[in-house]
Amino acid sequence: MKENKCFSRLVYRGRILDLYKDNVVLEDGREAEREVVRHRDAVCVLALRDDNNIIMIRQYRYPVGKEIMEIPAGIMEEGETPIGAAFRELKEETGYTAGEMEKVFSFYSSPGFTDEKLHLFVARNLTAGSQNPDPDEQIDIVEIGGGEAYDRVIKGEIEDSKTIIAILYYNKLFGN
Amino acid sequence: MKENKCFSRLVYRGRILDLYKDNVVLEDGREAEREVVRHRDAVCVLALRDDNNIIMIRQYRYPVGKEIMEIPAGIMEEGETPIGAAFRELKEETGYTAGEMEKVFSFYSSPGFTDEKLHLFVARNLTAGSQNPDPDEQIDIVEIGGGEAYDRVIKGEIEDSKTIIAILYYNKLFGN
Repeated sequence: MKENKCFSRLVYRGRILDLYKDNVVLEDGREAEREVVRHRDAVCVLALRDDNNIIMIRQYRYPVGKEIMEIPAGIMEEGETPIGAAFRELKEETGYTAGEMEKVFSFYSSPGFTDEKLHLFVARNLTAGSQNPDPDEQIDIVEIGGGEAYDRVIKGEIEDSKTIIAILYYNKLFGN
Repeated sequence: MKENKCFSRLVYRGRILDLYKDNVVLEDGREAEREVVRHRDAVCVLALRDDNNIIMIRQYRYPVGKEIMEIPAGIMEEGETPIGAAFRELKEETGYTAGEMEKVFSFYSSPGFTDEKLHLFVARNLTAGSQNPDPDEQIDIVEIGGGEAYDRVIKGEIEDSKTIIAILYYNKLFGN
């Protein structure tokens, strides 16, 4: 049942997101209100070392009020392709340059209230280098085996959705 | 590196989300701005029939402008427990009453900008009944095998993160 926009109000235009409050008409003629966070697309990278260990990062995430483990990720810049952003974010956040970058699939983080879409890549043939994070980011690098990563997902110790997707995909990939 | 809030501005108080623009002080004394969407916790349910087929729903999602396939899910109500919300949302959206509801793990949908947390459950021993969706929801029920669900994730046809997590977890569970 398609919902047709009849009125859209920009509530807030921000740095990483815009908030809209829209009125829609449902197919049966009823009206409803929709709060929508418009967010630029992002990329995330399952970066595998030659021994198939996963390169992860640990960083403080203000919205959830704590440090969490994640795979390298970030918002695409204006005019950038998803694969270009994947190479850039991996290098900035971990220092690694990928010799191979393969698209896996894309997904919406929470389609009930935001259009944020993430493109997942697998990076291989990594060459170490120096990190170059955003000025307001502090990122620690963690290397972890696929089996341990899976155990930490099940125990609830890895709590980021894109990271859980990457780890479950990895385990399927390697049949662990 | 913890980020300490020094100023918080409520930009918008809404029906399903609130938007804050906060100023924080990093551990090294620098300041930064954080846009945060505060969102109530939600639940999602991997509902398995006796033959282990998955009960999914198809609904129009206004933020992404199309119909997508998802597992049953919804926002927790005031004072409700996660498991209580899981039983309620499964019944409302699919008509099924679960004889068994088991917590899997919880995760953040997109911790870079929102505190939204989802609690994933597996439901079994389902008894069919009538749907009772929210007045502004129209939901079609789809039954799908775990192998087909996995193939549709890989092909990019299932694009919702919580649903991808549930399907990859299912495939791990049953060793497909």
